[in-house]
Amino acid sequence: MIELALIGMGSGHPDHLTRAAERALAAADLVLVPRKAEAPALAALRRALCARLLRAGARIVEFDLPRRDPDGAYLAEVAAWHAAIAGLWRTHLAEGLPAGGRAALLIWGDPALYDSSLRIAARTAAAGLALRVRVVPGISSLQLLTAAHAIPLNPLAGPVLITTGRRLRAEGWPDGVDSLAVMLDGDCAFETVRARPVTIWWGAYLGLAEESLLAGPLDRLGPEIRARRAALRAERGWIMDIYLMRRGADLSLA
Amino acid sequence: MIELALIGMGSGHPDHLTRAAERALAAADLVLVPRKAEAPALAALRRALCARLLRAGARIVEFDLPRRDPDGAYLAEVAAWHAAIAGLWRTHLAEGLPAGGRAALLIWGDPALYDSSLRIAARTAAAGLALRVRVVPGISSLQLLTAAHAIPLNPLAGPVLITTGRRLRAEGWPDGVDSLAVMLDGDCAFETVRARPVTIWWGAYLGLAEESLLAGPLDRLGPEIRARRAALRAERGWIMDIYLMRRGADLSLA
Repeated sequence: MIELALIGMGSGHPDHLTRAAERALAAADLVLVPRKAEAPALAALRRALCARLLRAGARIVEFDLPRRDPDGAYLAEVAAWHAAIAGLWRTHLAEGLPAGGRAALLIWGDPALYDSSLRIAARTAAAGLALRVRVVPGISSLQLLTAAHAIPLNPLAGPVLITTGRRLRAEGWPDGVDSLAVMLDGDCAFETVRARPVTIWWGAYLGLAEESLLAGPLDRLGPEIRARRAALRAERGWIMDIYLMRRGADLSLA
Repeated sequence: MIELALIGMGSGHPDHLTRAAERALAAADLVLVPRKAEAPALAALRRALCARLLRAGARIVEFDLPRRDPDGAYLAEVAAWHAAIAGLWRTHLAEGLPAGGRAALLIWGDPALYDSSLRIAARTAAAGLALRVRVVPGISSLQLLTAAHAIPLNPLAGPVLITTGRRLRAEGWPDGVDSLAVMLDGDCAFETVRARPVTIWWGAYLGLAEESLLAGPLDRLGPEIRARRAALRAERGWIMDIYLMRRGADLSLA
């Protein structure tokens, strides 16, 4: 039996790990380190945490993530991509821990929020590898965003919807909710929002030295965010950013 | 100038603090410890963390939170309660740090999610106390819930709404969203849900030794959760619980 710990690493800065996450990593016999061509900095952050926290004798297995085929329908494309990654996990776990043991995978942010490791683990187990999954929560980028801006996620006694750029673009601002957190937005879906007034709190590279923040009325800030995203991506070769929007005029207590 | 650090303490278990949270607490000159009659265990958790992490010479100021007047309209009632708490903060901070310094407040979970400390800090500052607020994120109960059940918060590429028991009861299951996380529910608002099929993942005292979990179809589990809540509350004198619900039949990959 292999125990696979999915460990939330927050931003990747060592100060953002919990003690529970440190312990889980220190207990690992083998750590999977996926390399994603679009975000090479992530593998470097994972390596740095492993160098700091792994016990002597623990092994690191690095592998390239397959690229997602962008031609199919979105969900089918994601399913095929997950199946391919599950195949890699199965190979590396079976080869690396033939007699069982403790494997770990560092997850950016929190394993429950817009991360597919739990689904990939289910596929790996379904494909016949005896796997017990354990989740260690981590600070999500949403929490780093609200902390950096010192704002609440939800309005007083009100709901907040967490969604994706793709959904916002396709469906517009949903009814019944004034606070909208948007993740996985590769192309400024906030530009499609028609509601006014809207305040936006934006952040990139949250929790890292490169952290970049902007906040203000969407009308004024929209173009500025688009320009800064483009400049940062050009400069660093990758970007991860998210934002929170709130509609309505009464922001006295955010 | 007083710097007030709002420090997310997660469940209160020392393993759920980040290093950043530990450092922020260790840097404090004064820590506010509010006592809430309904949840005496919270003050005990805060005291235990202070005993472990405060530097020598740091002071702890304990005070009783006022009770909320349950007779008024909900938002007016909450506003009055926040104003009363802000008055207490102002008194204790001004008396405790007459020449300025570093104050800290440990927040259960994360300061951004259904916590009013940021709003109370804004009121305190508006009342004339020079205050700079800094937020240190913590693991929220939602993350402890999804970790304990090893499930994602959001469906694949889909949104999740975080809301309150009061809203769910008043407005029903909102359109356009299949995943609903419910917090601050004192009276089993899931019983008002008419959608079927619905799966519920419930947890109380998340992250603590007393942690209690239930998961399954709402039809079967609803009465069981009501009974267990009542038994736990009777046994311990307080309860804090939350849940995630998902509607639809396809839960193959949660």
